[in-house]
Amino acid sequence: MGLIVQKFGGSSVANAERVFNVASRVIETYDNGNDVVVVVSAQGDTTDDLIEKAKEINDRASRREMDTLLSAGEQISMSLLAMAIQKLGRPAISLTGWQAGMITDSNYSKARVRRVTGERIRRELDNRNIVIVAGFQGINKYDDITTLGRGGSDTSAVAIAAALGADLCQIYTDVTGVFTSDPRIVKDARKLDTVSYDEMLELASLGANVLHNRSVELAKKFNVNLEVLSSLVKEPGTIVKEETNMEKMLVRGVARDNDVARISLCNVEDAPGKAFQVFSLLAKHKISVDIILQSIGRDNKKDISFTVDLDALDGALKVLEENNGIIGAESIVHYDNVSKVSIVGAGMVSNPGVAATMFEALYNAGINIQMISTSEIKISVLIEQEHAEKAVRAIHEKFHLGA
Amino acid sequence: MGLIVQKFGGSSVANAERVFNVASRVIETYDNGNDVVVVVSAQGDTTDDLIEKAKEINDRASRREMDTLLSAGEQISMSLLAMAIQKLGRPAISLTGWQAGMITDSNYSKARVRRVTGERIRRELDNRNIVIVAGFQGINKYDDITTLGRGGSDTSAVAIAAALGADLCQIYTDVTGVFTSDPRIVKDARKLDTVSYDEMLELASLGANVLHNRSVELAKKFNVNLEVLSSLVKEPGTIVKEETNMEKMLVRGVARDNDVARISLCNVEDAPGKAFQVFSLLAKHKISVDIILQSIGRDNKKDISFTVDLDALDGALKVLEENNGIIGAESIVHYDNVSKVSIVGAGMVSNPGVAATMFEALYNAGINIQMISTSEIKISVLIEQEHAEKAVRAIHEKFHLGA
Repeated sequence: MGLIVQKFGGSSVANAERVFNVASRVIETYDNGNDVVVVVSAQGDTTDDLIEKAKEINDRASRREMDTLLSAGEQISMSLLAMAIQKLGRPAISLTGWQAGMITDSNYSKARVRRVTGERIRRELDNRNIVIVAGFQGINKYDDITTLGRGGSDTSAVAIAAALGADLCQIYTDVTGVFTSDPRIVKDARKLDTVSYDEMLELASLGANVLHNRSVELAKKFNVNLEVLSSLVKEPGTIVKEETNMEKMLVRGVARDNDVARISLCNVEDAPGKAFQVFSLLAKHKISVDIILQSIGRDNKKDISFTVDLDALDGALKVLEENNGIIGAESIVHYDNVSKVSIVGAGMVSNPGVAATMFEALYNAGINIQMISTSEIKISVLIEQEHAEKAVRAIHEKFHLGA
Repeated sequence: MGLIVQKFGGSSVANAERVFNVASRVIETYDNGNDVVVVVSAQGDTTDDLIEKAKEINDRASRREMDTLLSAGEQISMSLLAMAIQKLGRPAISLTGWQAGMITDSNYSKARVRRVTGERIRRELDNRNIVIVAGFQGINKYDDITTLGRGGSDTSAVAIAAALGADLCQIYTDVTGVFTSDPRIVKDARKLDTVSYDEMLELASLGANVLHNRSVELAKKFNVNLEVLSSLVKEPGTIVKEETNMEKMLVRGVARDNDVARISLCNVEDAPGKAFQVFSLLAKHKISVDIILQSIGRDNKKDISFTVDLDALDGALKVLEENNGIIGAESIVHYDNVSKVSIVGAGMVSNPGVAATMFEALYNAGINIQMISTSEIKISVLIEQEHAEKAVRAIHEKFHLGA
């Protein structure tokens, strides 16, 4: 008995049959005496179809108009879900982002949530309605419709859960939870019962496409209990929450990310402020840099290498080449046939043996490490992409993560 | 140079090519120095497709959810049109019903416009934007989305024109204007340059599917100059405005309506208040009655006959049969193989010869008249449906309405 927010993605509501499947999952929770808020994405390919329609007309349409256009997608799916719940004999009402009070900034197509007023949602819950809210969308101070960008519906769900003080925010997906590694690569990958926010953040940013980082960050900030679970298989998922046992050292999972590229600035002057110059330039152009490696200076020259997201590669190269007059690299080279393989686990930093164990697994598998990056709760290595799956399996086995 | 509201229907924006056609019509008006507000319906079959989706899930869905669902249709078309105008290099912004301040009552699926705040529209016009507004939709005092029902987008356009004090409200259709009769029936039917609100009202209610009555009533009330014109053919349309020459007697057009049915209550008691009893009963059930004919009482019995819209026939019969204990008709019979053929023109009432001329035309064509109804500006007759087209042609010719 409590307040539960449930989020269902686009594939979960792609057709009438699936809409009814979601409706009955929702009703089960409602009939157990809970208040239920459901956050829903646009049906199946609706968003892509709308983008296609827009591109046919104007491939450089204003982002405001794009957001207004795309928000129609959730408006359709939310009312259909409300109708399905009504059909099954329970009271339901659907609310758009603006009706639900999802206030955002004006950064169209990737707006950030400012606050959720939530008054309307609360009023409808008080009337014992199941409340369906359009995910992914909000409204800015000019009364214009905004969208939250990638992972938007997860973010909507967590923001609503935070604003309402929900007991649980369930994110329904096509997997049954968070695994020690990708089950498609590692056969005996094991589902985790719980994982901390920080671990989930690292796993998410390392290619475990279960939850978007933004929603996890928000959940951490407002201490929202998240559960990742399957919309098709009825079994408990993985709970994402505050770490309660800080001392326990545990490698929680192995992840792989192919969408990275390496850039090297060769033979730049070995002078103070050079790295600052390069990375502030990239930051100014909103290009995120991940692993950084700087060679030891020799003959007053050094190499600066780093990785960027694959889709940021062209932009990064353009910025660097245009500014090479200031940077002064002898050459700028890049290489995108790489993978980042990472292990994640709380307390890793205080256990130096973990990194050694990981490197040993790679050595035994005959895999060369190009770059290394460590944080409090993760260790990442950059390797040739063709070895990535073998690397994940070797590490998974070495740490006995399997079932 | 002025403020012009232009309304385009669903077929005018059915695909990208047509959206661009509309965009260039709009831009032509804008480039002539006018402020332009465009009201747009949902693309082509979008509304029907959404209704189909809803029916698949719940054929008795709440009307609130239906309205929310359907309103997504115009939200899509309006942003696509804004994008097309932007593509052609002019500034455009699209507004939903609630953004445009289209305030309605809460009668979902057939809401009435209460007022148009219009502030947002004015602000965007002041910024020299071409403003696209979603037709057919509004918002009630609970912040819920409503739709205006049949003819809704025309009504939106006229309401906005009235609120903003527009110089002209252009309704773009698939015909080039209002004709003396249906050109598909009468070959030499002629386009009218002007027609009065009242004449247009009669023509609309008599089956000339050019403008919906609600929008004409609204235009009359607020003295909005309407123009009916083609979205494809560039030529002046028909102006609908206040009658300025009241003395001029003119039969303006001949219309035919097949969507009628006749009901007869046979041998009811010839007592005072019987007609009141019957028609107040029907009014209570929101059933509109058109032509009424009551036979002269004989043996203390009389017949009451009247016509209703074809789609109201079943409902009317049900109400009458359920209440026949009070009404006391010996039998209730109906007949739906009829047409209503009408002539419309201001000042008709003061020219008794007009009715005679119309009846003469029907007599010469060998067509029997079942019922007759007259008003200040129209004369309608009910005849066998199979003779309807012949009747229209005969009357059109008799009054020399042709080109």
